[in-house]
Amino acid sequence: MKQAIQQISEPVKAAIEQFKTAYQAALQSDNALIRQMVDHVNQSSGKQMRPLLVLLCAQLYGDITPATLHAAASIELLHVASLIHDDVIDESNLRRGEPSLLAKFKSKTAVLGGDFFLSASLSEAALTGHIDIVSTISDMGKALVKGELLQLSGSKDAIYNQNYYFGVIKAKTAALFCTCAKLGALSTLKELDDKAQRLIEMSENLGICFQLKDDVFDYQEGGHIGKPVGNDIQEGKMTLPLLYVYEQASNSEKEEILQAFNSKDIAYIQQLVVEKGGMDYTQQQITYYKEKALQCLQDFEDTPTRKAIEQFIALVADRQK
Amino acid sequence: MKQAIQQISEPVKAAIEQFKTAYQAALQSDNALIRQMVDHVNQSSGKQMRPLLVLLCAQLYGDITPATLHAAASIELLHVASLIHDDVIDESNLRRGEPSLLAKFKSKTAVLGGDFFLSASLSEAALTGHIDIVSTISDMGKALVKGELLQLSGSKDAIYNQNYYFGVIKAKTAALFCTCAKLGALSTLKELDDKAQRLIEMSENLGICFQLKDDVFDYQEGGHIGKPVGNDIQEGKMTLPLLYVYEQASNSEKEEILQAFNSKDIAYIQQLVVEKGGMDYTQQQITYYKEKALQCLQDFEDTPTRKAIEQFIALVADRQK
Repeated sequence: MKQAIQQISEPVKAAIEQFKTAYQAALQSDNALIRQMVDHVNQSSGKQMRPLLVLLCAQLYGDITPATLHAAASIELLHVASLIHDDVIDESNLRRGEPSLLAKFKSKTAVLGGDFFLSASLSEAALTGHIDIVSTISDMGKALVKGELLQLSGSKDAIYNQNYYFGVIKAKTAALFCTCAKLGALSTLKELDDKAQRLIEMSENLGICFQLKDDVFDYQEGGHIGKPVGNDIQEGKMTLPLLYVYEQASNSEKEEILQAFNSKDIAYIQQLVVEKGGMDYTQQQITYYKEKALQCLQDFEDTPTRKAIEQFIALVADRQK
Repeated sequence: MKQAIQQISEPVKAAIEQFKTAYQAALQSDNALIRQMVDHVNQSSGKQMRPLLVLLCAQLYGDITPATLHAAASIELLHVASLIHDDVIDESNLRRGEPSLLAKFKSKTAVLGGDFFLSASLSEAALTGHIDIVSTISDMGKALVKGELLQLSGSKDAIYNQNYYFGVIKAKTAALFCTCAKLGALSTLKELDDKAQRLIEMSENLGICFQLKDDVFDYQEGGHIGKPVGNDIQEGKMTLPLLYVYEQASNSEKEEILQAFNSKDIAYIQQLVVEKGGMDYTQQQITYYKEKALQCLQDFEDTPTRKAIEQFIALVADRQK
């Protein structure tokens, strides 16, 4: 995985180092507790796929500028802030295989930790010097709140259908990927034209792939996302593999599924989802969105950067862990 | 109180209505739960003294522009966001005499409610069109986190001295007031000169007055801030009236005070603070900072706007509830 990302990063290698410098600079603080929280979060900093997407999109659309680097830092900081608050909300003690900020510090402190990352995201947006980029980040902040609330309501009100599910992932993961493409294009300082729209569309499809793949991993031992298997079920989230099976089921089967889901019988549900084709169906959907994402790149010149984005899409869709 | 604020608002009356429109527009959402939260928060919207300060400072320094209105909305939204998260952190069920967002919704939802107000603050900052204003808001966001963490650490580590206390209120309340003056001046699109510095200094002193007065009210029945008497003690916060008495006390008296403080013996502490001069001392400090704030206005022309700011300072320092 790491090697594949390195290869994809090749066309924007120098820019990635500059992005990292901006990212770290935004998190400086003279407060010891803030530094401890930042260090803890940075220890498991993830694959930073979103800033990579910003840089690649900028380079494909125009040229990487200093604004691109700050925009990449801003979106990654916003993403991390939302993960911190999501962990507080979901009472998740694991993040990327390590104790979450919530687990390490108290809930109170973790709320403030998320707020600090959110403010840092805003500083980086300001450093781009472009008001359109600031608005894009603030719109994304609102969208993430809405996405998380939709997800909470869905679990609470037991709304189990694909339509609702796709609404949630479009509002959360996919919207974040779209924003990466938009930021990349805006930061080149060119007007946004049809090609920018194609990049944004590509990113939406890529984001859906990414989320569906995460959902699949939740049913597999040794899944990559550093959460225990069945974590989604544990948190009361019915994702696509199970939703498909649920929608296909007879009324009496539906009752059985709900009983197992509500009593968090992970082993039973795992088996059912495999047997009844939930995994295969989700895999088909992943392939469908992967192809859609690749199609969006057709009008772009065949450069190493375009190739890198194609590899990015393939990696997201086909990764095995 | 309401009448006094109306009088102070007179020179910027039209602008206040425009600020309110911008504030409400920033909180629009197509999500029902977000709308419920916004409505709940708006029901007890407070005195909105910070946006009033932005408008008055802008008018004293230059001219109110559309950027002034959005900056005023942005700082008020940031302030409300921080109150929402503070209530989650302090587990406060009352805010301005009404159930807090935490009390009405669950802690999870209230965290997201705060995030929504924070994102709305950012949208309004972007609408000013001025990157310096966006940076000022993001710096303030970081400062509020730091202030709240300082306060939490102070309570946890039992740091009881005036120096630390003033550090906390400068980082929280006073910094927010300073930012109002800075936003007011920046939004006139004039360069910031010595006069802007005087306005910022005035606001810092005003902010300290404001906080000290709140601290006094916490010891008085029928205090204005819509929290029960002794709420600070309940939350483990030792504020100036008690800090003064504590610092003056002998070692054995200190032990007694700490015992009463830790066991939240509010009646005993209230009586002690009055008897040992803690209230008088705090009142002297309020008068000291009030005079300092008024002095900062000396170089400004004697206009109705300057007069309104002077009345603002007097109101904050002398209000009886």
